[in-house]
Amino acid sequence: MKIALAQNNYIIGDFDHNVGRICDSIEKSKRSGAGLVVFAELSVCGYPPRDFLEFGDFISRCGKAVDAIAKSCHGITAIVGAPSVNPSLKGKPLYNTAFFLADGKVAARAHKTLLPNYDVFDEYRYFEPNRLPYQLTGYLGYNIAMTICEDLWNISDDPLYVRDPAEELAALHPDLIINIAASPFHYNQYRDRRDILKRNATKYALPVVYVNQVGGQTELLFDGDSMALSPGGEVVLNLERFREDLQIVELKALLNPVSQHEQENQTIAGIHDALVMGIRDYFHKMGFSRAILGLSGGIDSAVTLALAVKALGKENVLSLLLPSRYSSGHSIEDARKICETLGSACEVISIEEAFRTFESTLRPLFGDLPADVTEENIQARIRAVILMAAANKYGYILLNTSNKSEAAVGYGTLYGDMCGGISVLGDVYKTQIYDLAAFINREREVIPENTILKPPSAELRPGQKDSDSLPGYEILDRILVEYIEHRKGPDELIRAGFDPSLVRRVLRMVNMNEWKRHQTPPILRISPKAFGTGRRMPIVARYLS
Amino acid sequence: MKIALAQNNYIIGDFDHNVGRICDSIEKSKRSGAGLVVFAELSVCGYPPRDFLEFGDFISRCGKAVDAIAKSCHGITAIVGAPSVNPSLKGKPLYNTAFFLADGKVAARAHKTLLPNYDVFDEYRYFEPNRLPYQLTGYLGYNIAMTICEDLWNISDDPLYVRDPAEELAALHPDLIINIAASPFHYNQYRDRRDILKRNATKYALPVVYVNQVGGQTELLFDGDSMALSPGGEVVLNLERFREDLQIVELKALLNPVSQHEQENQTIAGIHDALVMGIRDYFHKMGFSRAILGLSGGIDSAVTLALAVKALGKENVLSLLLPSRYSSGHSIEDARKICETLGSACEVISIEEAFRTFESTLRPLFGDLPADVTEENIQARIRAVILMAAANKYGYILLNTSNKSEAAVGYGTLYGDMCGGISVLGDVYKTQIYDLAAFINREREVIPENTILKPPSAELRPGQKDSDSLPGYEILDRILVEYIEHRKGPDELIRAGFDPSLVRRVLRMVNMNEWKRHQTPPILRISPKAFGTGRRMPIVARYLS
Repeated sequence: MKIALAQNNYIIGDFDHNVGRICDSIEKSKRSGAGLVVFAELSVCGYPPRDFLEFGDFISRCGKAVDAIAKSCHGITAIVGAPSVNPSLKGKPLYNTAFFLADGKVAARAHKTLLPNYDVFDEYRYFEPNRLPYQLTGYLGYNIAMTICEDLWNISDDPLYVRDPAEELAALHPDLIINIAASPFHYNQYRDRRDILKRNATKYALPVVYVNQVGGQTELLFDGDSMALSPGGEVVLNLERFREDLQIVELKALLNPVSQHEQENQTIAGIHDALVMGIRDYFHKMGFSRAILGLSGGIDSAVTLALAVKALGKENVLSLLLPSRYSSGHSIEDARKICETLGSACEVISIEEAFRTFESTLRPLFGDLPADVTEENIQARIRAVILMAAANKYGYILLNTSNKSEAAVGYGTLYGDMCGGISVLGDVYKTQIYDLAAFINREREVIPENTILKPPSAELRPGQKDSDSLPGYEILDRILVEYIEHRKGPDELIRAGFDPSLVRRVLRMVNMNEWKRHQTPPILRISPKAFGTGRRMPIVARYLS
Repeated sequence: MKIALAQNNYIIGDFDHNVGRICDSIEKSKRSGAGLVVFAELSVCGYPPRDFLEFGDFISRCGKAVDAIAKSCHGITAIVGAPSVNPSLKGKPLYNTAFFLADGKVAARAHKTLLPNYDVFDEYRYFEPNRLPYQLTGYLGYNIAMTICEDLWNISDDPLYVRDPAEELAALHPDLIINIAASPFHYNQYRDRRDILKRNATKYALPVVYVNQVGGQTELLFDGDSMALSPGGEVVLNLERFREDLQIVELKALLNPVSQHEQENQTIAGIHDALVMGIRDYFHKMGFSRAILGLSGGIDSAVTLALAVKALGKENVLSLLLPSRYSSGHSIEDARKICETLGSACEVISIEEAFRTFESTLRPLFGDLPADVTEENIQARIRAVILMAAANKYGYILLNTSNKSEAAVGYGTLYGDMCGGISVLGDVYKTQIYDLAAFINREREVIPENTILKPPSAELRPGQKDSDSLPGYEILDRILVEYIEHRKGPDELIRAGFDPSLVRRVLRMVNMNEWKRHQTPPILRISPKAFGTGRRMPIVARYLS
């Protein structure tokens, strides 16, 4: 039996596009002699559809799309994912379902049992878990255990769910496990996903076919990484990451593997590729092609520019250099240099006149009060007015260039440098941005050496350096990872050896700035715990603040 | 048996404050001869604690706070709400628990079974539903069924959950039902809450004691409305809404009610009181006292000002009038007039000079291109720069004055009039704002008549009216309510008689502007479906757009 793994890039709610991609893959699989072709979880509507699932109209379009796909299943069988209506009056109105399509119709269904409802996942908001007895799906004399993503993830010693569908299905003696998934990238996910799939294969001594979606869905970045494993846990087939792919595996080759074909992983390359894909898909799926950004001469905007040029093409990115009276000469030089290296356009517009005008406009209100953070924010906001004006006039989308370290501690101006349609680096700590710069520079110097070496500065007052207001990024980032990613409390951090007053200061800065982060653009997610939909903190609160 | 209902205003994560409020109420109840005092759901940490629940440190502080409260329970018994640790390795790590505190210690516990996970609720993100056999809690010879909020809400013909804890508890023959709740206000909640409580009382022929929290928690507005009902469903005792209250009821009086004492409800008064409480608690709990807003002469900012003055005091609100070359003379007059009526300060700052400077700064980039929406946005953004500068310099918080109708269709400038720390009217449709204005003017003219009567205009280009770009608000709001609140699709709306092209245009506008709404401030929630945490839409998508 030949099984095709179809790893496609879906657009949420675009049924024409999704059905088109699925039917294309069905045709291709058929031509290649596959008898069964497998698609990702909720492939018919794209994942995550979020509250579109609450609209009867949306659900009915999903049903029609499944029927349309079924009609193209002659001489080939397909497994697709879509929501389906829970016929019982009791419980949530929907199931998250794998549809087994054969001979022009829906031949079988399997509903998802384990509904992830943590971090970025909200599935229990919409779906009833499967409570029906499990059944295997027969196909050409083989018995298939159809599972959906999380259904295989309850295999730890500290399981999140009381029921284990994989174990219950394995007890029915299937010939293979198929798992359709929508499993987004983060920098540990390559390892975690393999670990889970290998543990399932070896625990049940069964081959596993795993199909994930690929592509950026706003902040969520799906790397694909679909694969087929032998009962011994060897990865016999592994699809390309970060792009659409379709490959075929013989069930026999899974049962008697002669060689392994596994994609390589390198953390920083994965982050790089995920961000490039995230920018590209944000623009293309929104129907935009051109980006604008403010280029300061610092490392964050330089890395953002390099990623944007990679994603959209050098002719589709415009950099504005927006110097103030406090900008150093080298900032303009460094900024110009990267644009020259990349062959991408830049313009220089001084904010001095606008800054002076605001000083004079505000004089009746401010009198002779000394300059403070107000004047720093005014400069950042003037830059935002100019960037947004250029974006509005010419149809650019503004890229936000803030990093995760400054977003964490609130070191940024709301409605100023925190603006943008999408935040490229908002899930990348400052210390990781240096690694990204080195990766971008691996073959030739794209990010100027001076940009990398000079001390970070917002240049909003004379001689300002980030280190005037913040701890060094090496120590700051370590505390932030422990607090944000690992949810360590103050006592644990102090016991781990961090300075008590620094710990309290950093945690307080993080917690006091929820209101600011609430208004930032979506952030491309590359870590297990990004700011945004996966981290939901009260704004008005008094905890560690 | 005398039961005290203690309806307090908690601060999320502020254990000192919350334990203080609870222990005060315990003392008061004891002095009034009550044997049992009941507090709200998660009263110990405040509701909703959101992802604070993922921090071991936070959970351990909750446990210590419960122990501290228990120590003050001598000669009186208390029921408080707090998270507790699920001792099983399987399932989510926490329960949402009612603690029965007597003789200085935890004497009994009941865990919540039904975990709301829709709209603004995310409880299955954190909590394992109770799967233990139900038990009644004995107290002075009475058997109490302790339930938590949603546990009583599965009583409809189309229940959301497969299990019904109220029914299972009732089968154990309790003497009364106690329900501790965290049930936020929306304009139908007064009716829905009574309906549910009365149906439980009468179905099981049992008295029901219901205690809700009160106060604003960022966008969620808890009206309190705690009450005690007879087995016949009569509301024998009803606490004040929108403020802290403590009242005592005799169980005998519930069993043999002689009279009903129910708070009145009037939709628009409820919305008014909820918004005033929401502003007040946002400021006070954040540690701020003073608000600033841009006053345009239009009805939205006028109503916002009136509500802010009511919430914070006239001396704590500053209005900036920010006229441009397109502002009409009456706008300034109308704006000045309401400030005079309210006795609240205002300042006039022209944005003309700043606007001219941006025109000249941008000329090298824009050349002779004609003015378009870019220049309209620049004006709105200059106003934001000025308002935020004043806020930064003097420690004001900016109030956002946008309404729900314009937020829905994207009629507003991101980083311009969409700025603010909190959105006061972002859940109030334009047509409801006229009702609010009439309510505010019920005793004397606060909102000037001309502000109410003139056609709405953004005044960003000569002679501009909202009706140039939008359908009339009467028809627009009706479509929006059907689409947003009732999740009707295009076909249903057209079948209901709305013009097909208008329906498609409005739905497209709503869906195309998710990216803008993603970056707006928290919106005080007064409807069953507000923009914000209760409505989670994909940003990059193509559905009805």
